Amino acid sequence: MTKIPHRITLSEEHIPSAWYNLRADMPNKPAPMLNPKTLEKAREEDLYPVFCKELSHQELDETTRFIDIPGEVMDMYKIYRPSPLIRAYNLEKELDTPAKIYFKFEGNNTSGSHKLNSAIAQAFYAKKQGVASLTTETGAGQWGTALSEACAYFKLPLKVFMVKSSSQQKPYRKAIMENFGASVIASPSSTTAAGRAILAEDPQNGGSLGTAISEAVETAVTTENCRYVLGSVLNQVLLHQSIIGLEAMEAMKLYDEYPDVIVGCAGGGSNLGGLIAPFMRDRLQGKAKTRFVAVEPISCPSLTRGVFAYDYCDVGKITPLAKMYTLGCTFKPASSHAGGLRYHGMSPILSQLYHDGMMEAIAVEQTRVFEAAKLFARCETILPAPESAHAILGAVREAVRCREEGRAETILFGLTGTGYFDMAAYSVFNQGQMTDYRPTDEELEKSIAVLPKVTKM
Amino acid sequence: MTKIPHRITLSEEHIPSAWYNLRADMPNKPAPMLNPKTLEKAREEDLYPVFCKELSHQELDETTRFIDIPGEVMDMYKIYRPSPLIRAYNLEKELDTPAKIYFKFEGNNTSGSHKLNSAIAQAFYAKKQGVASLTTETGAGQWGTALSEACAYFKLPLKVFMVKSSSQQKPYRKAIMENFGASVIASPSSTTAAGRAILAEDPQNGGSLGTAISEAVETAVTTENCRYVLGSVLNQVLLHQSIIGLEAMEAMKLYDEYPDVIVGCAGGGSNLGGLIAPFMRDRLQGKAKTRFVAVEPISCPSLTRGVFAYDYCDVGKITPLAKMYTLGCTFKPASSHAGGLRYHGMSPILSQLYHDGMMEAIAVEQTRVFEAAKLFARCETILPAPESAHAILGAVREAVRCREEGRAETILFGLTGTGYFDMAAYSVFNQGQMTDYRPTDEELEKSIAVLPKVTKM
Repeated sequence: MTKIPHRITLSEEHIPSAWYNLRADMPNKPAPMLNPKTLEKAREEDLYPVFCKELSHQELDETTRFIDIPGEVMDMYKIYRPSPLIRAYNLEKELDTPAKIYFKFEGNNTSGSHKLNSAIAQAFYAKKQGVASLTTETGAGQWGTALSEACAYFKLPLKVFMVKSSSQQKPYRKAIMENFGASVIASPSSTTAAGRAILAEDPQNGGSLGTAISEAVETAVTTENCRYVLGSVLNQVLLHQSIIGLEAMEAMKLYDEYPDVIVGCAGGGSNLGGLIAPFMRDRLQGKAKTRFVAVEPISCPSLTRGVFAYDYCDVGKITPLAKMYTLGCTFKPASSHAGGLRYHGMSPILSQLYHDGMMEAIAVEQTRVFEAAKLFARCETILPAPESAHAILGAVREAVRCREEGRAETILFGLTGTGYFDMAAYSVFNQGQMTDYRPTDEELEKSIAVLPKVTKM
Repeated sequence: MTKIPHRITLSEEHIPSAWYNLRADMPNKPAPMLNPKTLEKAREEDLYPVFCKELSHQELDETTRFIDIPGEVMDMYKIYRPSPLIRAYNLEKELDTPAKIYFKFEGNNTSGSHKLNSAIAQAFYAKKQGVASLTTETGAGQWGTALSEACAYFKLPLKVFMVKSSSQQKPYRKAIMENFGASVIASPSSTTAAGRAILAEDPQNGGSLGTAISEAVETAVTTENCRYVLGSVLNQVLLHQSIIGLEAMEAMKLYDEYPDVIVGCAGGGSNLGGLIAPFMRDRLQGKAKTRFVAVEPISCPSLTRGVFAYDYCDVGKITPLAKMYTLGCTFKPASSHAGGLRYHGMSPILSQLYHDGMMEAIAVEQTRVFEAAKLFARCETILPAPESAHAILGAVREAVRCREEGRAETILFGLTGTGYFDMAAYSVFNQGQMTDYRPTDEELEKSIAVLPKVTKM
């Protein structure tokens, strides 16, 4: 067999020409979204005030297997795609494992993460429809940065609601979004009714993703010809992110490789859902036995400690309801939690797959995550984002298992982004001041107790 | 002809197996280094206390045309190389130019710049010789980051003297170096005689590259089995950086392209020297008429306003003397100067080529540089380092000239790195608070007046 290079970078013509819609091949489809006013199954038109039409259609489309990537989107993809599939030879050596470790690296663009894949698609469809401006929310800042870039490219005004505690911790994240022309507002803010209500109760509120979503959605529906876009959780986002998995599968094919296990970090699920999509199809169709492992933080354990139920996507309860693993939309991870992966729910697609036993999940401590990040950086000279380092830790554990069991398995993980803007968290870790927080059962029961009562579906 | 893709990424086997030593093909060699004590031509042995043997040899070797890249260096190169050659289609469209604009992008690694190419080589040779630890200096922080990564990879302890004003402005640069295990000391420091002397005169001294070099060299020669390494200026560094030009030439060949003009930013000259090396050979041999344009800041204009003379490489005058374009080793750019490109001298190789009329140079205002950076980021979705944006501005001006003259020239420029750690400077620019400073003739005369008197050579 050909020697496998360190980096397998496909050429431009290998960028898939269509996204893959995993729902088309799922025997159990994700449960439908519900209209928050009627609690009835949401129709496409119900989504139009929030999302542009094409994206509303993609959100609900569970039958079209492949959806063509528009030429304008492809033109921007070509600036940074295909992303490399990298063989982590040095990490393998360091771990003394017989396993082969591959990672799909999505951090080689200025946004620094995979989020750009969906940001481009969403900005394009909005522009095509003649939408005048967009709103969104961002937590750690990767999504906001990616969308700022996409909007700058398509010349679309953008308003980003950034979780206040995060915007204070990461002034440079704010600066890079502004540099691409976005207007960045710390959330909760006084610019929306949702924000004002929270500030009236608690003027010092540091915000949450759920609150920022409420503010962004409210702004979209109350502003002339404005729409809302979201960086994870949604079906449309997983659809766009399928490009990660399609490219990874193509690159592995070139070397006659196929993963025995795929590991990804899981916040809202966009990267993991995109990475596993074509491999999951093979498993659903009985063509492969690949294991899929979601790695989440113990401080925000939606899969491992949440419930599978209908919930709102936001704190303000103005978004459609989705059936997903959730900690309750009022859940907020402890302030000691670094980086992203802080959303209360999980992608309905991944939630369904997990519920059906097609995917595993583990929850890990962030101090272990940063240890894995530093090991990886030294061996492979890429400084990972804390989010991405959850996947590294998961892959390292699989590789160690392979060593103990003497198995030469093929491990693939998603390295979603770089940690350039996370040096404050790295410093806290390096000074020995990082702590781990595991929510108590009482805390989780409290936020789960207030889940909406949905009996009709 | 084949359609030219957006990104031409060669595969691993296209990484050149040897560095190219341009000196071997220069009819007028750069003037020899001088021993600072005797002012005689430095012998290889004279350099041993400062550099390890192999690098001392490379520094003085002006006849060996190609020098093999060791396997261990190649193994680390393969993690991030070959770097892509990108066609800036969107920038061309925005400028409405008939020119084709290519850039060789060296920012796709955690160090965020081309500096890693030489850091790996220098760390490897030191490790191979059994050196116990390394010292260096860093200004903007790119070199220190790159060397920290290389030292982490080869498990070599490293002490970095970071210009104090820069370490205060960029705490995260310090953090990333520490994250890779380096010890970072703000310069001037009390740990060296050179530092103490400066602090005694001026306790508030914010430091300079020249001072940091003095401290690093002093530490190397007074510490058991320790050596000094430098990220630019030196002949050995340009040798290692030739990999940029060799790859660029190979990638262009694939599409039957050849640059009419090559543009690079110029601080110490490492990236520009590496990028142009094989193309300059063609010109020296009469095979091509490519123009070479160095772009430097008006605040630190060594080529356009300096003198071609022997000077020390450091403020403390303990390094060998080099003949180069220099503003005098006591010159410090104004505090309003953002980013790197703040060294008082220019690579002896580039200085000789410029002196011989083989290269042009322009000096530009930083406010124009940041404008070009933002334009480029919007079009090509890569946020450039301020240093790299000097090259962008130079390329934009060439492309505009092509439009005005109706010429479809091929422009190649070096995009040396990303601006993730430069958001503070971007913010100053975005707030309209960035200023331009052009040193007065009197200022330059003052620092040039104290050049060493070298009459022997």
